[in-house]
Amino acid sequence: MISVETQPRWLEIVARKREAQQVALTSFIETHPVSQASNSLIEIGDIAEMRNEVAMGKVSASDLVVAYCQQAALAHKKSNCLTEIMFEEALARARDLDQYYQKEGKTIGPLHGVVMTLKDQFDVKGFDSTLGYCGRAFQPAQSNALLVDILQDLGAIFIAKTNLPQSIMWCETENPLWGVTTNPTNAELTPGGSTGGESALLSQMGSMVGWGTDLGGSIRIPSHMMGLYGLKPSHGRFPYDRVSVSTEGQGHVPSVVGPLARTLSSLRSVAQTVIEAQSWKTDPQVVPVPWRQDLFEEVQNRPLVIGLLTDDGTVRAHPPIIRVLEEVAGKLRAAGHEIVQWNADHHAECIEIMDLYYTADGGEDIQRDVSVAGEPYIPHVDALLKRGSAISVYDYWQLNRRKLAMQKACLAKWTNIRSPISGRKVDILLTPTMPHVSVPHRSCKWVGYTKIWNFLDSSALVLPAGRVDKSIEKSLGDEEVLTYVPRNDMDRWNWKLYDPVKMHDLPISVQIVGQRLEEEKVLGVAHVIERILKG
Amino acid sequence: MISVETQPRWLEIVARKREAQQVALTSFIETHPVSQASNSLIEIGDIAEMRNEVAMGKVSASDLVVAYCQQAALAHKKSNCLTEIMFEEALARARDLDQYYQKEGKTIGPLHGVVMTLKDQFDVKGFDSTLGYCGRAFQPAQSNALLVDILQDLGAIFIAKTNLPQSIMWCETENPLWGVTTNPTNAELTPGGSTGGESALLSQMGSMVGWGTDLGGSIRIPSHMMGLYGLKPSHGRFPYDRVSVSTEGQGHVPSVVGPLARTLSSLRSVAQTVIEAQSWKTDPQVVPVPWRQDLFEEVQNRPLVIGLLTDDGTVRAHPPIIRVLEEVAGKLRAAGHEIVQWNADHHAECIEIMDLYYTADGGEDIQRDVSVAGEPYIPHVDALLKRGSAISVYDYWQLNRRKLAMQKACLAKWTNIRSPISGRKVDILLTPTMPHVSVPHRSCKWVGYTKIWNFLDSSALVLPAGRVDKSIEKSLGDEEVLTYVPRNDMDRWNWKLYDPVKMHDLPISVQIVGQRLEEEKVLGVAHVIERILKG
Repeated sequence: MISVETQPRWLEIVARKREAQQVALTSFIETHPVSQASNSLIEIGDIAEMRNEVAMGKVSASDLVVAYCQQAALAHKKSNCLTEIMFEEALARARDLDQYYQKEGKTIGPLHGVVMTLKDQFDVKGFDSTLGYCGRAFQPAQSNALLVDILQDLGAIFIAKTNLPQSIMWCETENPLWGVTTNPTNAELTPGGSTGGESALLSQMGSMVGWGTDLGGSIRIPSHMMGLYGLKPSHGRFPYDRVSVSTEGQGHVPSVVGPLARTLSSLRSVAQTVIEAQSWKTDPQVVPVPWRQDLFEEVQNRPLVIGLLTDDGTVRAHPPIIRVLEEVAGKLRAAGHEIVQWNADHHAECIEIMDLYYTADGGEDIQRDVSVAGEPYIPHVDALLKRGSAISVYDYWQLNRRKLAMQKACLAKWTNIRSPISGRKVDILLTPTMPHVSVPHRSCKWVGYTKIWNFLDSSALVLPAGRVDKSIEKSLGDEEVLTYVPRNDMDRWNWKLYDPVKMHDLPISVQIVGQRLEEEKVLGVAHVIERILKG
Repeated sequence: MISVETQPRWLEIVARKREAQQVALTSFIETHPVSQASNSLIEIGDIAEMRNEVAMGKVSASDLVVAYCQQAALAHKKSNCLTEIMFEEALARARDLDQYYQKEGKTIGPLHGVVMTLKDQFDVKGFDSTLGYCGRAFQPAQSNALLVDILQDLGAIFIAKTNLPQSIMWCETENPLWGVTTNPTNAELTPGGSTGGESALLSQMGSMVGWGTDLGGSIRIPSHMMGLYGLKPSHGRFPYDRVSVSTEGQGHVPSVVGPLARTLSSLRSVAQTVIEAQSWKTDPQVVPVPWRQDLFEEVQNRPLVIGLLTDDGTVRAHPPIIRVLEEVAGKLRAAGHEIVQWNADHHAECIEIMDLYYTADGGEDIQRDVSVAGEPYIPHVDALLKRGSAISVYDYWQLNRRKLAMQKACLAKWTNIRSPISGRKVDILLTPTMPHVSVPHRSCKWVGYTKIWNFLDSSALVLPAGRVDKSIEKSLGDEEVLTYVPRNDMDRWNWKLYDPVKMHDLPISVQIVGQRLEEEKVLGVAHVIERILKG
């Protein structure tokens, strides 16, 4: 038996943090029972619809917060998705909003009463931003992240923060402080990551909008695995101010902030709202590009040219992923849009350069954070740190030159590939998000379909486009599956994960990719695709 | 006596490059005598005026090129400002343009026949981009810089490349390959740098528009010293594609491309033309922000709020610099604009961080270039390399964090300082460009008034606003000059440079500073100031 005195520091932190979390959850649930009526509130996944209800006085912010906190607690029980619990503070804020509404007869702003959650990187005054590191616990933030301030001013209410992996540099969600977040539809599977706390929570209707970050796919991958909508903007479109991140200060492949939502209209609504807040006046990293409604609408009113990338040449996606992608492409073609075959030229070299960056500091940043409280490394981080040693600043600059050369080559490719029918350039690309759907914990490895767009700083959006259907997918006994010759170890590993029976009914998304700072365009095209998919 | 065999490699390169240059100059001058009529052509310093003459057929591109090449050769003789000579190629291009005009009855584009020159960093197919390094000689570029292509397509003609300092990281113009560029009004003085070849040439009417780069003041300082107009845009507004630079790959304080011109309208004209070429479609570093005519016009049609920064707190500018700045401010106030006192809070820390960056690679980049041909270090570069040793990538990231924190503090300052009269935020700042006018070679040290705006990535523009006038300046015997107590060594050094008699008639500029990517705004405000100054 280990006595309290000899318990390692990190385990003590874990115990204290988890206990405090449990207390906050339990006390709220016991003191604020959810009514039958308010239970149906959480089914409204659309901000515009919710806004109408609130504006007409049919729904109060307090009712919403109670309903969502109760649901979030249930979701947490099932998937271990939450970190910081802010239920009481959220309810106090909701009551203020209700008072405002009663007194003024109007809502405080376009997000009045909209319940949101935050990946545990966004500073909220009085709460930790642990990033999943034990060593960052019990250091409450002194102020709110700029994004939190912007959204709160418009009426949004934050009820909790959500889980993420140690180091944040992984597409699953596990750390020694909070443990592993599971897929609520099957606890053996991952909800994706690194914004996996959000995807597990949102898929259980425990929040209306979640905020994540994306450095290699961390918004898009969990959205894909849990059937959600996720937007990865280009760097400088959304404010990163007072959002903590690992390897902070590296700017070669910048992490970006973006929303996850249960409906496309909500995703568009919050994206537009944040851009219209002109955060470049406060955050020096934000580019002064206003919301361009014309760009959003223009792509919805003409035949598009769409580049279809089915295979990145390194890891072939599972049959259901390709089936759904091709179905979407087929429907787009039938609706009068041009589909142009895209290729994966340059992808491998871009990814090679990107991987060299990850270890440019020899892992010093991550090691420092982990060593503060002496917690163990999760296997993925351990492997990452063993992969390379520190390079010199001079060599780092040479990597930057290689990066820029590749970015330029990819931009030239976009200019040069033309529709064989009309001769036009492509408007957007349509690609898989991942080579597979949700898989068992610790088996995600290849994120080449998402990280390439971080490297190129493209705007990208994923939207749910189908599900695995064991009755129609290629079975394990199918000739094509049986005789597939893997291209490399990564491809072999991926192919072995395929099992349409076990994967039955898991969500599949498609990824829409625009050029740099074309958020309006990818949102507009997403509406085009959604309308086609929903008939 | 040194025999040819034992001559160091760099000296051999110097001899060959300079001889080739001399041959190109001499042969052109002898074969293309300038006529009396065309001699007056170079006096047209304004693109719009020139365009009219050309469009009406009064002036041919060939006449312009011959006149400018002759003048450039004279200017070079006086100031050693040129590097690569492209006279014959320019004339061939001019003849093509003349043929086009005769055949089509119209100009090829808005820059038809406009003669331009380039700092020796911009790639021009078939010519070296030496950056002043012997080791880069005899390696002709394989293609044009994107900016060169854009301008050529619109009708511009490039006649030569111009000198710059070894390493480019200095505000004077000297290197072992081409020697020192002198101020044409007094060979003992510097024309500034690092774009000093351009400023020496333009001030002698040897070009209409010069293109430089600015990492710490390299466009603005030579413009200031030679009475020219210079624009330093924010990073990502103008294309840097295929422009070579020292410490390439460092992105912490990015070097930017910008124009120098003899008139403000020319400066605005080329800036607008380049932005309208939408170079973000080819250069991944360019931000997709179109030319905003409304922003350009809006500031010209209302009372402005102008922050006046007279003193950066480290090096006090010489009396004539402050006199001119205050005269401009007084005239603006008299014209109905608000003048708000600005302060230098944060400037010292920003500059401290910036200086740490300069040696982050331990000087490896510069040492590699210098060692290729074994040339000597100029004293300024020698001192720079001795100042610091290489840091780790992790520490480099921490510097980036400090930088961002300071950028944020400076942005907050811009939000918080208000006009005591109207309560409005300032539109732009008005500051000195340098603490002194043109000074003897190798005596420039402090560029704090310009480099701070590179650190903050502000848009900035300098315009000529006066000259030293020994009859009105504070004399060396003046009480204030005599009793001035320097704040530090740098300030003492600067104060000792002051001599209103020796400095008589040298140009003085004011610097207009906008926020990030506000090029239209600083150009608009420059027009406001120019109109006031010219009555």
